[in-house]
Amino acid sequence: MKRGGTHPVVEAPESSRLFTLPDGVRLVDKGARPQGITYPLGFLASGVTAGIKESGRRDVGLLAVEPSLLARVASAAVYTSNAYAAAPVIVSQRDTVASTISAVVVNSGNANACTGKQGLAVARAMQKEAARQLDLPAARVAVASTGIIGELLDPEVVAGGIRQAAAVLQPFGGQDFLEAIMTTDRFSKACALEVETKDGTVRLGGCAKGAGMIAPGMATMICVVTTDAALTPGVARSLLTREIGRTFNRVSVDGQMSTNDCVFLLSNGASGVYLTAAGATQFGSALRALLLRLCLMMVADGEGATKIVHLRVRGAGGDDEARRVARAVADSPLVKTAMYGSDPNWGRILCAAGTVLAGRALPRTYLEIGGVRVVQDSRAVSLTPESVRALRAHMAGSEVEILLHLGQGRAHDEVYFSDLGHEYVNINAEYHT
Amino acid sequence: MKRGGTHPVVEAPESSRLFTLPDGVRLVDKGARPQGITYPLGFLASGVTAGIKESGRRDVGLLAVEPSLLARVASAAVYTSNAYAAAPVIVSQRDTVASTISAVVVNSGNANACTGKQGLAVARAMQKEAARQLDLPAARVAVASTGIIGELLDPEVVAGGIRQAAAVLQPFGGQDFLEAIMTTDRFSKACALEVETKDGTVRLGGCAKGAGMIAPGMATMICVVTTDAALTPGVARSLLTREIGRTFNRVSVDGQMSTNDCVFLLSNGASGVYLTAAGATQFGSALRALLLRLCLMMVADGEGATKIVHLRVRGAGGDDEARRVARAVADSPLVKTAMYGSDPNWGRILCAAGTVLAGRALPRTYLEIGGVRVVQDSRAVSLTPESVRALRAHMAGSEVEILLHLGQGRAHDEVYFSDLGHEYVNINAEYHT
Repeated sequence: MKRGGTHPVVEAPESSRLFTLPDGVRLVDKGARPQGITYPLGFLASGVTAGIKESGRRDVGLLAVEPSLLARVASAAVYTSNAYAAAPVIVSQRDTVASTISAVVVNSGNANACTGKQGLAVARAMQKEAARQLDLPAARVAVASTGIIGELLDPEVVAGGIRQAAAVLQPFGGQDFLEAIMTTDRFSKACALEVETKDGTVRLGGCAKGAGMIAPGMATMICVVTTDAALTPGVARSLLTREIGRTFNRVSVDGQMSTNDCVFLLSNGASGVYLTAAGATQFGSALRALLLRLCLMMVADGEGATKIVHLRVRGAGGDDEARRVARAVADSPLVKTAMYGSDPNWGRILCAAGTVLAGRALPRTYLEIGGVRVVQDSRAVSLTPESVRALRAHMAGSEVEILLHLGQGRAHDEVYFSDLGHEYVNINAEYHT
Repeated sequence: MKRGGTHPVVEAPESSRLFTLPDGVRLVDKGARPQGITYPLGFLASGVTAGIKESGRRDVGLLAVEPSLLARVASAAVYTSNAYAAAPVIVSQRDTVASTISAVVVNSGNANACTGKQGLAVARAMQKEAARQLDLPAARVAVASTGIIGELLDPEVVAGGIRQAAAVLQPFGGQDFLEAIMTTDRFSKACALEVETKDGTVRLGGCAKGAGMIAPGMATMICVVTTDAALTPGVARSLLTREIGRTFNRVSVDGQMSTNDCVFLLSNGASGVYLTAAGATQFGSALRALLLRLCLMMVADGEGATKIVHLRVRGAGGDDEARRVARAVADSPLVKTAMYGSDPNWGRILCAAGTVLAGRALPRTYLEIGGVRVVQDSRAVSLTPESVRALRAHMAGSEVEILLHLGQGRAHDEVYFSDLGHEYVNINAEYHT
């Protein structure tokens, strides 16, 4: 794990044209970021050094609902569908009741992936040890791991870490937890929101780790969201699923879905605010904003990323077509390297889209970069000197806006992606197994 | 087009573990390569400088069957299915009878793509001018272009080039033609084979240009194959389609299908050898070897490529699954950068495969790199020191062999791909529109 010291730790971008808050939602990151997932009331967290990471940094994190609130818990979880899903993902999926998850135990430094039956036993032991320490049924404890793929996690070391973490659980432990889940992240990713719903004020907190996949699998994305709103399990599940579809599933760093990806949403009702349908809608918008903010931080931390590109696909013949075109452009290494070079290379964008739409004729496509129309009716536009200047100025910035209208129908989609530059190659080629 | 001078011109690799000749097939590259497509009897070719390329290099090429052999011509063509197919592709598809193509006119320096109706008119004018010079019906002349996307090709300049090229057609003009179709290629790609079939000796010649997609679309791949065997149009078509599926469609430089890709096969019967079914099978094997050799040259010339990786996927549940897994691994920037770093990073290979096989459980997967088994039953193998040394030695070479067995069924596929390194980023980020 030689990366920690070799790459600069940068700050998460504070502001973004790509991120706007819905009405009634207040960002309380600045002061509250150190708390992250413990900004909402009624959560305890900690992060300790168990000795899994060679660096000696925190590597076991524990999040738990305050015992008095256990009866009000309504949770939800979404896991990677990768065919080689890691042991903790399998255990969390099989052996927890997602709607009652009241604690999450995470280790970093070892992904416990491609570790067979022994790995499953270790993940189950993690779950049981955390349940024992918290006096909870095992089915209420979710497990997650991130780090190196293919190495066995020492069950004694991680159990010791869990005991240690349980002993120091505290109401403002969100930052310690966050540090304990980080691997190759260049900056920590947390967000806290205060939401004025029609039903009353509730709080949302979240943290995430991840920045593309790293060799030999610093396996990727973990996201934990907490709220003191009182939700029903059904609302928790449907909101999480929907808003992940609108945020995480629209992010491309390198188009890979890791063996360890997971997102948890825990609600504990500590605010005493029970959300009605109208309140839940407001809450959903806030959840989307929180997830999007965490996503944009992950894109900004994309390995070697220098730009975030926001691509909107419009005028597609169907939702699937819109989604596939957006994904193809976002995943194209040619488009990504052009963005890195600040090159408004519409030819590559059309080419990537045209590959997905093979066999079709699309004579009415238009394309705008930073609001400048560069393609009209599927052919190049002759740009005025002012347009060229505007295009250059836009491409020189750290956020690029692209609109691709296929001229077919009314379906649309959007995606956020990072560029691909020398740092990506450095990071991903330099690590040796 | 500042690339020409900035990147080293390297030689096409002469030998490869990945390339073996079928029985009865002799490679006559060494002496005959300068002739390429004019190694078979009865073809004339030329390449001239019309003034399309700023560099002053050859930019219009012409290939024609000797007039006395026109009655024996049986040809076939395969075109890109990109939705934004270039004007010459549209004209060749619509306005030629593929089975009777007896001449091919190509320009480089301008792809005539995304050029609308004016572009179509220029492509038709190219076809007509070549037909007039060769005294052929326009439907027997195919047109191809490669170069910058989105700029109009000057019809006068290219027509002048065609007249000039027609005037210098000659039986050993294959090398001039080849030079006239090159754009960003670091080396020229040609191959000639002598094939001892049961029906008699025939010759195959081929040339290609392409090395990934370049900004703002040095649009990519053109391949022309000639033979003096006597084929029927049906055999020409079925052999070309099948062998392209086994070669070109199994190559990944950056996963993009350009607006201008096309492959032509022209047979003229000049050898007097009419192929029976058995002879056609032998011919098919030779055609595959020729196409594969051209493909491997393109992969070796992949932008900034330092390695060719040959991935075999076995044990898949179906053909489509095998194909999708092979493509996903080959197109993964994480796998490609690991290869660049000579890192036997099986975690990334499994992760890319597992993304495509989402929702499945594959407990019996195994993976070998350079013959060393690194994954068994979907979990990491503890390697002996000798295995580690063998793995390192294999990864340090320029050709990497990977076998991924999914443990599901009996379907299989294979793909050849290049690594992704700093030169790729340099080449693809440095070009500014």
